[in-house]
Amino acid sequence: MDLHKYIATVPDYPEPGVMFRDISPLMADGDAYRYATDQLVDYARSKNVEMIVGPEARGFIVGCPVAYELGVGFAPARKEGKLPRETVKATYDLEYGQSALYLHKDAIKPGQRVLVTDDLLATGGTISATIKLVEDLGGIVVGTAFIIELKDLNGREKIKDYDIFSLMEY
Amino acid sequence: MDLHKYIATVPDYPEPGVMFRDISPLMADGDAYRYATDQLVDYARSKNVEMIVGPEARGFIVGCPVAYELGVGFAPARKEGKLPRETVKATYDLEYGQSALYLHKDAIKPGQRVLVTDDLLATGGTISATIKLVEDLGGIVVGTAFIIELKDLNGREKIKDYDIFSLMEY
Repeated sequence: MDLHKYIATVPDYPEPGVMFRDISPLMADGDAYRYATDQLVDYARSKNVEMIVGPEARGFIVGCPVAYELGVGFAPARKEGKLPRETVKATYDLEYGQSALYLHKDAIKPGQRVLVTDDLLATGGTISATIKLVEDLGGIVVGTAFIIELKDLNGREKIKDYDIFSLMEY
Repeated sequence: MDLHKYIATVPDYPEPGVMFRDISPLMADGDAYRYATDQLVDYARSKNVEMIVGPEARGFIVGCPVAYELGVGFAPARKEGKLPRETVKATYDLEYGQSALYLHKDAIKPGQRVLVTDDLLATGGTISATIKLVEDLGGIVVGTAFIIELKDLNGREKIKDYDIFSLMEY
């Protein structure tokens, strides 16, 4: 199955000059969503993953069905004010300014083998922050998995110490 | 399996007097997440669901693995500015002011049998807006499914025209 035909490309979103790759048509098609997820499941199995962590909010859409199929847990990395209990925090740079992600302190057990998931690997800022949260709690990031890798933004360089799996490149 | 023991109760969050029911320990436990999801899958199967829609962001954690297991699509109902293509919009009342949810116009095909999912049924505001989006696009809401129903907030009354399934009550 060629998954590229399920990606909508939106020019000049969210700002002029950006070609936004939208995974929502892929998720909306039951066969394509299942096919894509099954490849992520195979990758996660090969890494003996014990826990999955994904950043808000498309990382949930990618990671949750993988967690379900493997029978492992899922922990959401969320923006400020969204997690009600004690958290760890990691900041990351945006084009202008900074943002932060949080993870519940009890989300990961020390030594747990963790897969980090998101829809896109772009500059790698979000995924780096998510990796840092997992490692702060003693988790071992055994892999990172994406639907799409945007080659020109070179996020791969930012997370070069980690194994990277993606289903498509643009 | 008694799922109640996987719910964290956080007093006075997000404001004084509120007992927040946090599903994250349930999602973090592979067995509990799978057990909970399997019950939602059985419910969805009984309704011949063809598509699942969940509101940002915990509705994704609940609905996505159900969509995967059934082999149907998932469409996210999102806050303003998060969906890149043409959308429909539904507003709903908050304690002070209003909020809005959006759905891509091509997310639902007319006549499609849709399950709406979220973590909690509280006042029913979010889920009512999500239902309205689905119906605006010609979808048929054949059921609503939640991990937790908060009885005192009487959300059930607000969506009394729809079938409601929840795994736990508080």
